[in-house]
Amino acid sequence: MDGEVRRHAISVQAFKRMPYYLEYLKSLLNEGVATVSAPNVAAHFNFSEIQVRKDFASVSSSQGKPKQGFELRNLIKDIEEVLGYNNTDEAVLVGVGSLGRALMAYSGFEVYGLKIVAAFDTDENLVGSEVSGKKIIHASRISDMCRRMNVHIGIITVPALCAQTVCDQLVAGGVKAIWNFAPLHLSVPDNILVQNENMAASLALLSRHLREQMKG
Amino acid sequence: MDGEVRRHAISVQAFKRMPYYLEYLKSLLNEGVATVSAPNVAAHFNFSEIQVRKDFASVSSSQGKPKQGFELRNLIKDIEEVLGYNNTDEAVLVGVGSLGRALMAYSGFEVYGLKIVAAFDTDENLVGSEVSGKKIIHASRISDMCRRMNVHIGIITVPALCAQTVCDQLVAGGVKAIWNFAPLHLSVPDNILVQNENMAASLALLSRHLREQMKG
Repeated sequence: MDGEVRRHAISVQAFKRMPYYLEYLKSLLNEGVATVSAPNVAAHFNFSEIQVRKDFASVSSSQGKPKQGFELRNLIKDIEEVLGYNNTDEAVLVGVGSLGRALMAYSGFEVYGLKIVAAFDTDENLVGSEVSGKKIIHASRISDMCRRMNVHIGIITVPALCAQTVCDQLVAGGVKAIWNFAPLHLSVPDNILVQNENMAASLALLSRHLREQMKG
Repeated sequence: MDGEVRRHAISVQAFKRMPYYLEYLKSLLNEGVATVSAPNVAAHFNFSEIQVRKDFASVSSSQGKPKQGFELRNLIKDIEEVLGYNNTDEAVLVGVGSLGRALMAYSGFEVYGLKIVAAFDTDENLVGSEVSGKKIIHASRISDMCRRMNVHIGIITVPALCAQTVCDQLVAGGVKAIWNFAPLHLSVPDNILVQNENMAASLALLSRHLREQMKG
């Protein structure tokens, strides 16, 4: 119950910092360190000490001890719990183009609790074949299959023009959370989360920075 | 000169909306539409009309005409110009693991003005071979090669533990902008831009949403 309360209290910004903390804390553990202090973590990330203390308090009930700091093992366990790395969520992917294939081939997601269990496409040459060990199913069956497999995460890697249609089919199939790689704003009901991975915007920001640097 | 002033005036938030506008405007153009009004664009994205007008004004000198709206072709050209899609930036990638390979195989980046010209790794079995048509070079040569090739963008797809070392080598080689896929906060000099692609945080947010939905 306590865990539930904490989980709701954490801000999205603090939540997004957790994978960074986790990575750092694990690297310390690998080096044989047993405890860590808030000032040390703050210095490593160039964050304020207050922020680090607040972040840790929002995910962990263990208090840092004066002089010693936080027990690394407990803190790591608490962060993994909050991030949901201990339970795996199944997902389907729609759009087996180059980006879709890349994500299907990427073995790193399972570490973070995500498993792609099926993929959809409209290309008749692909349907029925396997890519990275996953069967490709015709996109006309998205809603039906999501419901049958009881999958709640959909990954969209189709061109922007068909992304909204795919999104609607996923939602109709009971999907609650969408990871959207199409450069498009998706309209969804209030209870559905869309997490946009806007690579086009990232690239444009890099490019803009370069142009400004070259001028200066 | 006018263009330079506008480019500096646009906020990062507005800038990030541009790929979305661009995608939508291009889809209208494909349907044979010639002009678009701010209220229509606002309705499509569920943005306010004032925001859309401000965003368009920050990238385009062409004013919307009463009743007709904006000329699609001009608006598209202006947004592409601001996003830098017309000039291609060369990049190197470090870390030819599954994510690195995925990005190297993805043909979609060139549309957005990014071209990966070389990749680095420490694995002796990979060095000297080609992946997606790009030569794999030993990571000890990062700084030297970046300087020789005059490349200013570095993509980091190594594990978090070696990401800072790789980052320092890229910066030493004259790289000005870093696209970081490692779940780690990188320390860089002030004039270097780091664009984080924190997939671990995205996945954790999706997973958290699911757990909250399932409870409700």
